[in-house]
Amino acid sequence: MRIILVGYGVVGKGVTSILAKRYTEKNTSYGFNPKIVAIADVDGAIINSRGFSSEKLETFKQKGYQLSTDAEFGNPGMSALEVIEEVEAEAVVELTPVNIKNAEPALSHITKAFKTGKHVVTTNKGPLALAMPALTELAEHNNVFLRFSGTVGGGTPMLEFAKRCLVGDKILAIKGILNGTTNYILSEMGQSCISFQEALTNAQKLGYAEREPSMDIDGFDTACKVVILSNWIMGKKVTLKDVDITGIRKITLEMLQDTAKRCNTIKLVGTIDDSGVSVKPIEISWTNPLCVSGVLNAVTFQTEYAADQTLIGRGAGGVETANAVLRDLLDIRHKLASKLLS
Amino acid sequence: MRIILVGYGVVGKGVTSILAKRYTEKNTSYGFNPKIVAIADVDGAIINSRGFSSEKLETFKQKGYQLSTDAEFGNPGMSALEVIEEVEAEAVVELTPVNIKNAEPALSHITKAFKTGKHVVTTNKGPLALAMPALTELAEHNNVFLRFSGTVGGGTPMLEFAKRCLVGDKILAIKGILNGTTNYILSEMGQSCISFQEALTNAQKLGYAEREPSMDIDGFDTACKVVILSNWIMGKKVTLKDVDITGIRKITLEMLQDTAKRCNTIKLVGTIDDSGVSVKPIEISWTNPLCVSGVLNAVTFQTEYAADQTLIGRGAGGVETANAVLRDLLDIRHKLASKLLS
Repeated sequence: MRIILVGYGVVGKGVTSILAKRYTEKNTSYGFNPKIVAIADVDGAIINSRGFSSEKLETFKQKGYQLSTDAEFGNPGMSALEVIEEVEAEAVVELTPVNIKNAEPALSHITKAFKTGKHVVTTNKGPLALAMPALTELAEHNNVFLRFSGTVGGGTPMLEFAKRCLVGDKILAIKGILNGTTNYILSEMGQSCISFQEALTNAQKLGYAEREPSMDIDGFDTACKVVILSNWIMGKKVTLKDVDITGIRKITLEMLQDTAKRCNTIKLVGTIDDSGVSVKPIEISWTNPLCVSGVLNAVTFQTEYAADQTLIGRGAGGVETANAVLRDLLDIRHKLASKLLS
Repeated sequence: MRIILVGYGVVGKGVTSILAKRYTEKNTSYGFNPKIVAIADVDGAIINSRGFSSEKLETFKQKGYQLSTDAEFGNPGMSALEVIEEVEAEAVVELTPVNIKNAEPALSHITKAFKTGKHVVTTNKGPLALAMPALTELAEHNNVFLRFSGTVGGGTPMLEFAKRCLVGDKILAIKGILNGTTNYILSEMGQSCISFQEALTNAQKLGYAEREPSMDIDGFDTACKVVILSNWIMGKKVTLKDVDITGIRKITLEMLQDTAKRCNTIKLVGTIDDSGVSVKPIEISWTNPLCVSGVLNAVTFQTEYAADQTLIGRGAGGVETANAVLRDLLDIRHKLASKLLS
């Protein structure tokens, strides 16, 4: 499988590392033979139609940014759209930063990939949050696959669990703690008896929160994930504007201390049920499996036959998310093989 | 798919209900068309080569035991082995009670099914605990499938999660709270400040513990599940005698109160790692996702790329386990379809 990588940050480097390792280690164990034929970043691209060797990928990784200055393979100034259009490949791995205003440039990258017959694996929530129903239709129309495991739960396979492990059952509702930053802030407030502002500052110092933290603390990141779960798992065609969103700015230490008297705490929970899709701080019991602390993520699937099932794991991290990309590529390869057979 | 049901207790009745519901409701949604052609119980069997209607199955369920006295389809005194040998079917669902001394009668039922070319779905840990490496080989040799989702985690798809959702990653170790009875007893001791004996008596009153509770509290039930996880997920060919087992009889209220000072508690944990397979009461933190209370089950998969991933759900229950049987039947159907295509 020939792969174009778009975006070369932490996850992009992680993906090249994991794939390079597969080259030598166990690329045959799943009948999967990945070849990175191009990497596009903001300054241009590097292209090698025969696929970069693992040694070359390691060199690029050491070098870091400005790959396009490479004497042998560099194409300075070449845009990602041009790369997707012109380079022959089976799949595009889209890893540019999230933008929930208009989802660009990822949205254009993904649609260009579809129109040129390429499968897409992305870790970018923006295009899915704003246009998931349209994107899944466009993928189907062009007879290609769109996969996005890394967008929800990071390395924790929440989407796959719901799709593959609950066959024969029916998911009635989903509740999730889907944002590590807000969960860290709420956990810290309660455990260290500090204010929202102090906990946020700590989270920023530790690199858990951005300097501009609105995406996390105002609930937008969780809402994007709720949109993805809702479309993919529940078959409800919603976008970001359909989600009723309340963040955690108004949660005070006093509120947490008050709920603690009842052996409860407050968590930012994304909910999908019969009444709609929402993101809100809600009170939950300490003994609820959903009640995880720190930067962990958790999701509970309420099922018809098998009661509540909760999956907990790290919601973020470069290696974890890169591994989600690998799982998606393997899934596409598997789906293609099934198609060939049928 | 023609199915022979062996054992007609709570799970057996649940299986007939779920399958009957499929007849009418959504039997086409997975291309799955199940037909129960025989039910064998201790007193004999009922047989209908064309498959029992959902109405008839409901009548049997109302009747309860002694199905073999049915005027139309009853075969009083006919043994399960004879039914498996003589009735034409694709699959046997084996639901007899657990026996970890010699695994009978389930072991004979399963081997008879294999030798007559029938797939097996079982919820019975006995044969797997004592002879899993041999049974999986025998199934392969006879070109049939053996599935047993309901043996670990009840309705919570712990085995499927590890097999299907962690593709591309590597599981380094497994730790699990796999027995609801012992977890209820330990939780109750800590929360209600009562002795082991009092908590056991409460569990027996509530129906969570058997009158002869050794299987649970001495760790054998957890050990059986550790054997299954070890063989199926980790590829380690062990049986019950390889597990280092310590139960919870010696856990005192004082020990729990002492660990509570460190914000920890004691849980009966099954462990599979490089050092071997064991079942032991160990001290874990309240904030560890594995630290579930009451009758819940939890399992943590320690992975190479995606860190720790924990799955929590109800470990038992008739409906939940019956649903695991349905998942297994669907999986076999899916596997058979893939085979036909290849």
